[in-house]
Amino acid sequence: MKSFNLTLLTDLYQLTMANGYWKNGMNQHEAVFHLFFRKHPFKGSYTIACGLEYVIEYLQNLKFEVDDIQYLGNLKANDGKPLFEESFLNYLQRMEFSCDIDAVPEGTVVFPHQPLIRVKGPLIQVQLIETTLLNLINFSSLIATKSARICQAAKGDSVLEFGLRRAQGPHGGLMASRAAYIGGCHATSNVLAGKLYQIPIKGTHAHSWVMCFDEELESFEAYAKAMPNNCVFLVDTFNTIEGVKKAISVGKKLRDKGYEMTGIRLDSGDLAALSIQARKLLDEANFKNAVIIASNDLDEYRIQTLKEQGAKITVWGVGTRLSTAYDQPALGGVYKLAAVKAPQEDWKFKIKLSEQIIKVSNPGILNTIRVFKNHIPQMDVIINEIEKNNSLTMISFSEKEYSFSENEIQKLLVPIFKKGKLIYKNPSIHEMRKHTLEQVFLFHNIKNYPAGLEKKLHQLKLKLINKKK
Amino acid sequence: MKSFNLTLLTDLYQLTMANGYWKNGMNQHEAVFHLFFRKHPFKGSYTIACGLEYVIEYLQNLKFEVDDIQYLGNLKANDGKPLFEESFLNYLQRMEFSCDIDAVPEGTVVFPHQPLIRVKGPLIQVQLIETTLLNLINFSSLIATKSARICQAAKGDSVLEFGLRRAQGPHGGLMASRAAYIGGCHATSNVLAGKLYQIPIKGTHAHSWVMCFDEELESFEAYAKAMPNNCVFLVDTFNTIEGVKKAISVGKKLRDKGYEMTGIRLDSGDLAALSIQARKLLDEANFKNAVIIASNDLDEYRIQTLKEQGAKITVWGVGTRLSTAYDQPALGGVYKLAAVKAPQEDWKFKIKLSEQIIKVSNPGILNTIRVFKNHIPQMDVIINEIEKNNSLTMISFSEKEYSFSENEIQKLLVPIFKKGKLIYKNPSIHEMRKHTLEQVFLFHNIKNYPAGLEKKLHQLKLKLINKKK
Repeated sequence: MKSFNLTLLTDLYQLTMANGYWKNGMNQHEAVFHLFFRKHPFKGSYTIACGLEYVIEYLQNLKFEVDDIQYLGNLKANDGKPLFEESFLNYLQRMEFSCDIDAVPEGTVVFPHQPLIRVKGPLIQVQLIETTLLNLINFSSLIATKSARICQAAKGDSVLEFGLRRAQGPHGGLMASRAAYIGGCHATSNVLAGKLYQIPIKGTHAHSWVMCFDEELESFEAYAKAMPNNCVFLVDTFNTIEGVKKAISVGKKLRDKGYEMTGIRLDSGDLAALSIQARKLLDEANFKNAVIIASNDLDEYRIQTLKEQGAKITVWGVGTRLSTAYDQPALGGVYKLAAVKAPQEDWKFKIKLSEQIIKVSNPGILNTIRVFKNHIPQMDVIINEIEKNNSLTMISFSEKEYSFSENEIQKLLVPIFKKGKLIYKNPSIHEMRKHTLEQVFLFHNIKNYPAGLEKKLHQLKLKLINKKK
Repeated sequence: MKSFNLTLLTDLYQLTMANGYWKNGMNQHEAVFHLFFRKHPFKGSYTIACGLEYVIEYLQNLKFEVDDIQYLGNLKANDGKPLFEESFLNYLQRMEFSCDIDAVPEGTVVFPHQPLIRVKGPLIQVQLIETTLLNLINFSSLIATKSARICQAAKGDSVLEFGLRRAQGPHGGLMASRAAYIGGCHATSNVLAGKLYQIPIKGTHAHSWVMCFDEELESFEAYAKAMPNNCVFLVDTFNTIEGVKKAISVGKKLRDKGYEMTGIRLDSGDLAALSIQARKLLDEANFKNAVIIASNDLDEYRIQTLKEQGAKITVWGVGTRLSTAYDQPALGGVYKLAAVKAPQEDWKFKIKLSEQIIKVSNPGILNTIRVFKNHIPQMDVIINEIEKNNSLTMISFSEKEYSFSENEIQKLLVPIFKKGKLIYKNPSIHEMRKHTLEQVFLFHNIKNYPAGLEKKLHQLKLKLINKKK
């Protein structure tokens, strides 16, 4: 999926607006947009930012090709005349990406209203890239968050991502594998994701393997013959406990030949009871290190229940419910205008009104400060970076006032592109995953974490609301 | 997305099983698998088959490239030794796709347990392609079905698909746009989908356009100046009814210049009440043909409710809930072995057992016969095509017996590949969409449609169940 040109992967209204700005002489105007969400997914208490590497690839390839321009040139308006004039299309074709992009590194815990990406640059460009930025960040952050939740429920057990067959398309499957790994999963079944993203891959055999033979035992023996060093026997094709016994008998023969059976997999039935019985049989036969993998519509809730039931499962295979984020398949990220600037004028700050104050967007050129005390996060403060005299007071979204010091702080947005030039080096996917695990650990005991706006920014917002009313 | 090689887009166990078949001397064995689902999505009464064109592209590009083989060659088993031997990898690299593929054309109404795709060929190949076939067909059929349901609720009104920003990745968005169009939608906002798939595209302006100006009226005037022949004014940035009035005033000026405003768009608030008020204002101002587009988390349930409330909405913009199939984001399609054949032996029929008889897979080399009477579908009968003396009796999944005649029948599976060679010509996307509309119309008054197995096939299944118990 690398270096695929996604320039046309946008909503048509981004192009009709671009045409509008251009025809109204506003192509020299600058603007600032922020990409943020308003609510954690899955009724949770955190969100893992993810997808930045895709955004970087997309923006590095941003360019209207000749056939894109031809396609746009053939579009017709309602009256049958061309939708776009040739001079505008020539402008698009010559356009070179020149925005400043600041973003939260992948794997970072973020909270509602905080910019995950800040885009500053020519109005036409910042508008054009809205749809794809949302598409890439919404989905990756959703799955990384789901994965982190599932891994938390697994309490240190290995979690394998198996979702490709039910994912929303090939790229949906690939992106889910990547985000699931960054979110904390240990491996995927998806071979192409393994190749493209350097994620460990796992797999042994399916029910169809067993069905291809006349007897289950024969199928296990044939598998052990072919791959003696990669044996996880799927034991539930006919009767699970009988299957476990057959796996043990093949495991003994393997041991005689100097190989150790990795374990067994359960894929149906009462996973708690079956895993307890299987563990007992395996231990009695001196297969104490054999793993018990379980799969079958698992997610964080089901894993927690199975743990409470005393299940002896050591590895969790999670598919559909992870890779599609089944209980909430979309993160409601938005991309809102916060400031505009005409040439030779000052920045004008902008808000989008709503009946609910919590849905009113924040004006300014924003960043988030994370305030620490002895390395423990104390609060997150959204600031307007263009304001020179920021206070040391934060007004939380629940309207409480907090004071903070600047002794130990971290800015969540880091520079990615400067005037269209990439100035950021992606960490490896393994570093991103490690970052997530550290972040989840950092926040995992913190309830009702204080987050809000720096006081002057809060006042600016109120002023703009009153002006618009 | 065309001609991207997805050969490695598979679960690792498909390759370890392939290795197992190969090492056990079973690479000359043939097998038949069927891709089917067990339950209509969305608690509905039909499913629209979709995604075949992607399957064809995938299979035409099926080939292990040098770097794929290198990647597989570097994989390690638990003991640190190579997972795959060089001789097997050489075999993979030389492998040429040689299966027979039969499939249900896109846009066809299908029922549970019916094969959407039948794959017959070398065991290793039919196993290898399982994951990608499921990925492509599951998602496309899910969205086409959702789209058909939404279009039914809209009762002939135009439905526009706006879901790209919340879709599960770029390809998720593209595939959703395609399947939504085949399912009955009239257009998409997704420009790349328009270019790649020849789907009509639509779009005008967003809230950010309005916010870039000091006044809403000024923003509408600027837009009308730039695109007088493509004017749908988004009226809810500040106060919706005031917005409608401003749109009307700009519409009058447009009319003076010989242009006609297309309409307005509502994106928040009480869409029923606001659309009724807006219609009244538009009609009074003699804009009787101006459309009222509504959007904001719409789906078939919300559209039905709004219609019941007397909403005067003429065009429905549907996003997240369509493009991610929000209330059920995965179709549970499966791919099950139904027959195997060793060289010089007869076919052996296979079933996968389950505690519930409805979950036991069907044996044989299957097709579905749709029985008509005066062009009205009467029942669907799954038959074993290798059985020469099929009866004219069907046993439905609710265990009722039906007799049928073969005077007016249609086989749902049609040949796509013969020995790896493509022998099918895809209809245009517009023909597929027309086919869906006809199919939905054909079935829209039929309740409890009889579907099941031809009697001899039913008996074969029972025999195999009893043998396995």
